[in-house]
Amino acid sequence: MRILIIGAAGMIGRKLADRLARDGGLAGRAVDHLMLADVVGPGGPASAAGVDIAASDISLPGAAETLIASRPDVIYHLAAIVSGEAESDFDKGYRVNLDGTRALLEAIRHAGGGYRPKVVFTSSVAVFGAPFPEVIEDDFHLTPLTSYGTQKAIGELLLADYTRRGILDGVGLRLPTICVRPGKPNKAASGFFSSIIREPLVGQEAVLPVADSVRHSHASPRAAVGFLVHAAGLTREQLGARINLTMPGVSCTVAEQTAALRRIAGDEVASRIRREPDPTIMRIVAGWPQRVEARRALALGFRAESSFDDIVRIHIEDDLGGHIAV
Amino acid sequence: MRILIIGAAGMIGRKLADRLARDGGLAGRAVDHLMLADVVGPGGPASAAGVDIAASDISLPGAAETLIASRPDVIYHLAAIVSGEAESDFDKGYRVNLDGTRALLEAIRHAGGGYRPKVVFTSSVAVFGAPFPEVIEDDFHLTPLTSYGTQKAIGELLLADYTRRGILDGVGLRLPTICVRPGKPNKAASGFFSSIIREPLVGQEAVLPVADSVRHSHASPRAAVGFLVHAAGLTREQLGARINLTMPGVSCTVAEQTAALRRIAGDEVASRIRREPDPTIMRIVAGWPQRVEARRALALGFRAESSFDDIVRIHIEDDLGGHIAV
Repeated sequence: MRILIIGAAGMIGRKLADRLARDGGLAGRAVDHLMLADVVGPGGPASAAGVDIAASDISLPGAAETLIASRPDVIYHLAAIVSGEAESDFDKGYRVNLDGTRALLEAIRHAGGGYRPKVVFTSSVAVFGAPFPEVIEDDFHLTPLTSYGTQKAIGELLLADYTRRGILDGVGLRLPTICVRPGKPNKAASGFFSSIIREPLVGQEAVLPVADSVRHSHASPRAAVGFLVHAAGLTREQLGARINLTMPGVSCTVAEQTAALRRIAGDEVASRIRREPDPTIMRIVAGWPQRVEARRALALGFRAESSFDDIVRIHIEDDLGGHIAV
Repeated sequence: MRILIIGAAGMIGRKLADRLARDGGLAGRAVDHLMLADVVGPGGPASAAGVDIAASDISLPGAAETLIASRPDVIYHLAAIVSGEAESDFDKGYRVNLDGTRALLEAIRHAGGGYRPKVVFTSSVAVFGAPFPEVIEDDFHLTPLTSYGTQKAIGELLLADYTRRGILDGVGLRLPTICVRPGKPNKAASGFFSSIIREPLVGQEAVLPVADSVRHSHASPRAAVGFLVHAAGLTREQLGARINLTMPGVSCTVAEQTAALRRIAGDEVASRIRREPDPTIMRIVAGWPQRVEARRALALGFRAESSFDDIVRIHIEDDLGGHIAV
């Protein structure tokens, strides 16, 4: 099996590549080749044979055609300009998130020879916009309140139409906020959800820009990679016509997040969170879903953590080597 | 007030132009200028001064810029490749319905000088796809099962994002099936809903390709023009963030349609409907919404007919000069 990851230099992309290299297989088949693509050539899994690296911007003419020239069986399309940047740079967001996605789908359509890959697309709960019912069901409408959410919703619609026409075999995963993101903050407005756990655990202060009562849905990077791996094994029959799925997550308040941190790492660590309200971030976050009901995804076997404590523990295990800076 | 109608040669476009010329005003302001654009130059209202005609394909480079050069205050974007043709010609459907719409929005974005027109976009209940709940509420998700419905859903999302960013003042109207369409059938799979009323009323046989039990939502061309006129008068405050609205219609079965025809025109006319099941059309129609609840649109003052009898009568009045071929 040949696998292409577009957006492989991102946090999820790197963890997915590591997992695939470690597993050596996907959906019951051996992985023969892994192509890792990103706008800057990503690093590959240290110990993996059959790994190629490509520096490629799929929004540029011909780039997508080149990436799929080796006819990968599974394509992970994770590449995106994140929410904050897509909002501040209108043209860049639409060029990469809309035109780039469309260029990939079009390259597949024109590939010929009966080529029909599995395409796993990462969407986002940002396709939903307030006002919300208490629980967002699987059939809640697409009402994004950001350009990023708009572009993801359009990507979902395109993926579904190309799938319906038999051009490819698509599945879109609406990820909840991924938490705890290791490393440096990215330009996503949701970054603080990770910072308030990540920074205190390494002895640094973190800024909390919203109220403790803010509720949101989270899944760990490990769970997100699990979603991506699981999605590749789903059949067309299992998915039916509605190929875009809201992924499960842990719905909790910021207060519950910090309580989990306190339980696991102690008062000293939890005290490193400094409250500094930011009206801009508060306004953006107020438009986000608080609680999603991922009934279809759960029925199809997708699994997230069952508590925020697990999410904190997974970060400590996977990204801190088990070490907490008390 | 300056008004641009893109897609003015279509049935709704022509009736809208006639209505605006007749009314002489829109949203409480006098109409000074009416620009009628279509891929072939449309005919203009007979008696109107200040009417210009343009042959223009908005999917071609520079075409949208030229059309908005005179800075119309209200733009009606009705131009589209219809459902049947968008399904059979993938490239043409995406080029006109997606790229054309985007070209118009981009031309407005780059117009400069604080230009921020009202843009009224005709969407369709084809943005919804089966399986459906018994009643489709305003917050039902976008799950199109045709390329046409996909392109309309994407148009809605783009219109909402450009509106949110203050680039324009958009409102999208999801029209039910317009019935009775005068003139020749177009390439829409829904064409028979009109044929089975229109042809018998002029002494011709009509083919009914689906079962009498098929339920669907309808509004007359007169009601559709009413929606378009009403939409131009709505403020941003009335619309809020969710600018795409499902329009009301008369939900009835084919049996109820033919019964209405019989009541109004008699047995002889109604007997001109010949039943000839067409599996392809039956399959397409099975994926369409049967009953929509247009709660928001009704609250905002949009009005359709209250019975299919009214729809038949309006066709006889508006398109047959009151004459029935008994």
